Amino acid sequence: MKASVLFSGGKDSSLSAILLDRFFDVELITCNFSILPIREVAQEAAAELGFSHKMLKLDNEIMENAFNIIVKDGYPKNAINYIHHKAVETLASDESVNIIADGIRRDDRVPLLTDPQIRSIEDRHGIHYICPLRGYGRAAVNMLVKQYLIIEEGLSDEVLKADYETELREVIRQRIGQDKISGMFPSHIQSRVTGRVK
Amino acid sequence: MKASVLFSGGKDSSLSAILLDRFFDVELITCNFSILPIREVAQEAAAELGFSHKMLKLDNEIMENAFNIIVKDGYPKNAINYIHHKAVETLASDESVNIIADGIRRDDRVPLLTDPQIRSIEDRHGIHYICPLRGYGRAAVNMLVKQYLIIEEGLSDEVLKADYETELREVIRQRIGQDKISGMFPSHIQSRVTGRVK
Repeated sequence: MKASVLFSGGKDSSLSAILLDRFFDVELITCNFSILPIREVAQEAAAELGFSHKMLKLDNEIMENAFNIIVKDGYPKNAINYIHHKAVETLASDESVNIIADGIRRDDRVPLLTDPQIRSIEDRHGIHYICPLRGYGRAAVNMLVKQYLIIEEGLSDEVLKADYETELREVIRQRIGQDKISGMFPSHIQSRVTGRVK
Repeated sequence: MKASVLFSGGKDSSLSAILLDRFFDVELITCNFSILPIREVAQEAAAELGFSHKMLKLDNEIMENAFNIIVKDGYPKNAINYIHHKAVETLASDESVNIIADGIRRDDRVPLLTDPQIRSIEDRHGIHYICPLRGYGRAAVNMLVKQYLIIEEGLSDEVLKADYETELREVIRQRIGQDKISGMFPSHIQSRVTGRVK
């Protein structure tokens, strides 16, 4: 049975794929808007992990709406949640997709689908949405990451990740300037997977 | 690394153990109050699954307090949550335990530890508390159960399970009579594992 794992090239989505590997045919899916060359970043990490990988192009309208949300809000939470929700909807509407896996941890707050959003997507599209790390805290995730993955860590403006935030930041840079980014996005540590411990 | 999996002989705790099998040395732990012969039920299911198994005797005082809670409330939620919390605390205080795994699903409401309770237990005892099925809905769990387990299902007063509810019901039967049980406990479907699909 195929499981389509939302894949950013980071440690949480990579570990989710590894946890599912024995039970499903894992296919990594990286959503993007063709704004930055994140295809290469994602493909390289997927190859290191040894999983098959696909890109999923999201509608430009989604990024337009997300841009409007973050400009109005001044912080990224709702914009990122909005993109994430639309990404899961887009993937769920693919006829060949039956199981969507998402790398959300116990302590994640963004991006996060609500329980009614999850049930609605599952019911309308007849799919299963699963989060293999939802019952793992940060320390337990790090313990497993150490055992199974080789990662590179850095601040979010230094590590190019294949996630929505990276492209949303780029849109803001292009349209309203580099100096607006640090005011809107709190700086945080990002991880990128560079290898798998066999 | 050893993972101590709370084990009732039902499908959720069994599937949790199977999901962790590749990443940890799984040991099944069945908590009990020596009120009913649930040791045999749990041991038999554990042997079918092929995992090592231990019983953990909980303090009688915990059952006394739970009995008082359910008699006062008239329904089991708080009493079961109380026993569950004390069971995790008891297991966490064992020096040889570093990882506790619990078979809670996405849609479970009882028993359930709150986020502050989880963080408190993890911090005080220096352990990881993980719920491998926390990000799985009922339908996704059933899909995996079908693939990996052979189960027997029946109403809660027909299937002898190795869980707190079974012994709490027995205490009520002994002290205030069989006819009080159905008023306090909603009847629901229980599962018991009788084999593993290899």
